[in-house]
Amino acid sequence: MPQLGLLHWRAWTVLLGQLRRPPGAVCIRAVRSHSQVAEALFTSQLKPHQEKSNFIIKTPKGTRDLSPQQMVVREKILDVVVSCFKRHGAKGLDTPAFELKEMLTEKYGEDSGLIYDLQDQGGELLSLRYDLTVPFARYLAMNKVKKMKRYHVGKVWRRESPTIVQGRYREFYQCDFDIAGQFDPMIPDAECLKIMCEILSGLQLGDFLIKINDRRILDGIFAVCGVPESKFHAICSSVDKLDKMSWKDVRHEMVVKKGLAPEVADRIGDYVQCHGGISLVEQMFQDPRLSQNKQALEGLGDLKLLFEYLTLFGVAEKVSFDLSLARGLDYYTGVIYEAVLLQTPVHAEEEPLNVGSVAAGGRYDGLVGMFDPKGHRVPCVGLSIGVERIFSIVEQRMKIFGEKIRTTETQVFVATPQKNFLQERLKLIAELWDAGIKAELMYKNNPKLLPQLHYCENMGIPLVVIIGEQELKEGIIKLRSVASREEVAIKRENLVAEIQKRLSES
Amino acid sequence: MPQLGLLHWRAWTVLLGQLRRPPGAVCIRAVRSHSQVAEALFTSQLKPHQEKSNFIIKTPKGTRDLSPQQMVVREKILDVVVSCFKRHGAKGLDTPAFELKEMLTEKYGEDSGLIYDLQDQGGELLSLRYDLTVPFARYLAMNKVKKMKRYHVGKVWRRESPTIVQGRYREFYQCDFDIAGQFDPMIPDAECLKIMCEILSGLQLGDFLIKINDRRILDGIFAVCGVPESKFHAICSSVDKLDKMSWKDVRHEMVVKKGLAPEVADRIGDYVQCHGGISLVEQMFQDPRLSQNKQALEGLGDLKLLFEYLTLFGVAEKVSFDLSLARGLDYYTGVIYEAVLLQTPVHAEEEPLNVGSVAAGGRYDGLVGMFDPKGHRVPCVGLSIGVERIFSIVEQRMKIFGEKIRTTETQVFVATPQKNFLQERLKLIAELWDAGIKAELMYKNNPKLLPQLHYCENMGIPLVVIIGEQELKEGIIKLRSVASREEVAIKRENLVAEIQKRLSES
Repeated sequence: MPQLGLLHWRAWTVLLGQLRRPPGAVCIRAVRSHSQVAEALFTSQLKPHQEKSNFIIKTPKGTRDLSPQQMVVREKILDVVVSCFKRHGAKGLDTPAFELKEMLTEKYGEDSGLIYDLQDQGGELLSLRYDLTVPFARYLAMNKVKKMKRYHVGKVWRRESPTIVQGRYREFYQCDFDIAGQFDPMIPDAECLKIMCEILSGLQLGDFLIKINDRRILDGIFAVCGVPESKFHAICSSVDKLDKMSWKDVRHEMVVKKGLAPEVADRIGDYVQCHGGISLVEQMFQDPRLSQNKQALEGLGDLKLLFEYLTLFGVAEKVSFDLSLARGLDYYTGVIYEAVLLQTPVHAEEEPLNVGSVAAGGRYDGLVGMFDPKGHRVPCVGLSIGVERIFSIVEQRMKIFGEKIRTTETQVFVATPQKNFLQERLKLIAELWDAGIKAELMYKNNPKLLPQLHYCENMGIPLVVIIGEQELKEGIIKLRSVASREEVAIKRENLVAEIQKRLSES
Repeated sequence: MPQLGLLHWRAWTVLLGQLRRPPGAVCIRAVRSHSQVAEALFTSQLKPHQEKSNFIIKTPKGTRDLSPQQMVVREKILDVVVSCFKRHGAKGLDTPAFELKEMLTEKYGEDSGLIYDLQDQGGELLSLRYDLTVPFARYLAMNKVKKMKRYHVGKVWRRESPTIVQGRYREFYQCDFDIAGQFDPMIPDAECLKIMCEILSGLQLGDFLIKINDRRILDGIFAVCGVPESKFHAICSSVDKLDKMSWKDVRHEMVVKKGLAPEVADRIGDYVQCHGGISLVEQMFQDPRLSQNKQALEGLGDLKLLFEYLTLFGVAEKVSFDLSLARGLDYYTGVIYEAVLLQTPVHAEEEPLNVGSVAAGGRYDGLVGMFDPKGHRVPCVGLSIGVERIFSIVEQRMKIFGEKIRTTETQVFVATPQKNFLQERLKLIAELWDAGIKAELMYKNNPKLLPQLHYCENMGIPLVVIIGEQELKEGIIKLRSVASREEVAIKRENLVAEIQKRLSES
């Protein structure tokens, strides 16, 4: 498995364990109209101490701030993800947070209602991006790029009913890796699955499983079971709910809501309740009905090849062929996959947390062509890591461990025990900054020594430089190690070199 | 000045110089309605090769994609900025891309019309954030945080008429550093100016100047000149235009649009056309009218102290007291500042590029209180780096240099000269990935050797592993240096160690 630098298991669990919940949001219900609130705000600027207890202060529904502690954890998670993408040769790309509304139209099936639209303020009609895949396809078509391996880390927005306990938000990060281009079958697809395994192993979230299926196999099943072609998308959406609903309920939806004949639904049921490894692929090849369908055979042939490559990559045992996997999005055309964590809490105290899928993706060979004026196709396959859901697991673990994590990287604190030493402290700290040393001081003219030392202990700052009258006269500086409380006197002119030496050793 | 690690002048200029413009956007004018376009899109999924030349494909007005080359440059710029923020002990923070609309109301003065609102889709009224300062103040009030030094790098959105040649976009990155809390005067303010100097020096964009002023001095000037208090904000907005308009035009606006008496405007003109160093502060202390104004005296006293600290920090010569500096935003209450680049193109071929201010900030002691239900104040001072404008300068320089920059970090390419070696290549590359080595291969069953080697040369990949039948039999692998074209045979089992050794040496 990849060497993750700083992220050894011990350090990582300590990190994951040390966070505390951010202070809860003050949320006072409002009874005023918006203009009244605006008025209250304006008045407050003139009379800031006026009582205004009917005032709401919160983030929008389904969104949150990330505190410094949370930022440290998120950055560690993103580090693991992005390092893996770079290990596989991906280039970075960024696209705007919003797209022309029409770019997102007819790409997301039943989920399209969850797109955030911007108000028409004169000009173009815009929507916030719903994922990073459609903007990538738009980029490829717009710039006539025929081949590209890119990663993109960015926020996306969906107007879902937020169930925040499950780690679902209306604003969340996605980390996407995609390979665009015409290549020999299943080699890029296998790499995507390998990447998912590397990232989920690297994040050390416990055991996981990747379910795979193929849209062509699903379509083949629908065809041989007797679903009219016009209902393929609708029935596919129903199958997609099998991870949250029982087959009985899904069957009910197919028959009652989507008007499928009961016997057709039953035939589908026989298939979509199967899952297994490569042997299930072989079994489906022998299936008397399915083996008559050209699309299904293509899908089965590709899955067989895919399993062969996954074995060479050493990850086949993490992957399960699951005929119930459908993926909600309209744009998939071939292999699809979704990674779920297997619920084995690391600690007995932890309650199992249902976070749903933590990574997913698939092949979408038609999407770029939808944007190209001439319909030129660029086959693509990719994956998306659900960082927010992973983050939720980490937040869950926050309750268990007790050590602090550092939210700053400060290396040296410039302190004084004496009054009227601000000038000397400012001159000294500027020298440290200019030498690239991370340094802080107290923003007080005459701070007391003890609070300065306490601050260093609380913040985990390793070194303190202490300057006073005696030191100034003798041309020396005291350098204190916060951990050992040892102090040594150093010549003023050697201070920067000595600090750099100590920092490089630690 | 800070040691910026990899960013030595030579490397940096090479980097800045090597970029090429991204391929231009395909932009075909549309005559169809939105629903027709949607229909066309939907149809295209079924018939992807159908001609649809009336189709627009572009990013929204005032926005752009960043190509991999541009991403490399942007990340280098952000690295310099964020390293500096961390050197000064700042913690990270993130807030949602949108806020409740009312949170942004009455914060931005005349610019409020540039806020992007989201469509009312049922629920809360939302707006995209306009800067990172108001969300920071909202965070402090909501969580009752009284003291915090934080940085935030994120996109903000403004519906400005984009003049893209000048590096102005409707979506752009801001990099903010702020110090919240009650401290002894001007110490945090001086640190903010020091940070601006460190970043602008570190980015090596040529010479720069930081203009400073104080809102209390401006208000004092308005008071002693006879401006009615109700017009302070409006007149301040006019003064703010002095960097783009002549005094004559600004005076005209004050008198004709804002109804100021001509003689009052003339009195203002005598002040706001002054700029200089610490001596101008002394001169203003002696001014017979201004010295009668309590607010102005407070502002002048603080500026005097600020210059003293800036001298200790070694940056006073970069700072100019400029009475015309007003800053458009309503929320500033004390010292304000703005950094401009002095137009000295590095190369004779470069045309001067007017990018306006590249960094700005100031003190806003009342903003947090506007969000607090009881109006509790938390004094704040901060700065914002305009990355997009800095990026524009870099893009300008792209035309001059000629070397390539790498858009991937791939270290090793796994190649073969023979047919039917896919399995061996897949096994081998998985081994490299699992050892943390950045590796790629060609997604072909039987690639030819020459295109594989050319790809390495084009992409700057330093090492190639070559495997063939002979090697497989003998249990060896060929390792090729792309630069020297030297090849050595290595035992298969020593390959990872040998690669790691070579990479650590280079």
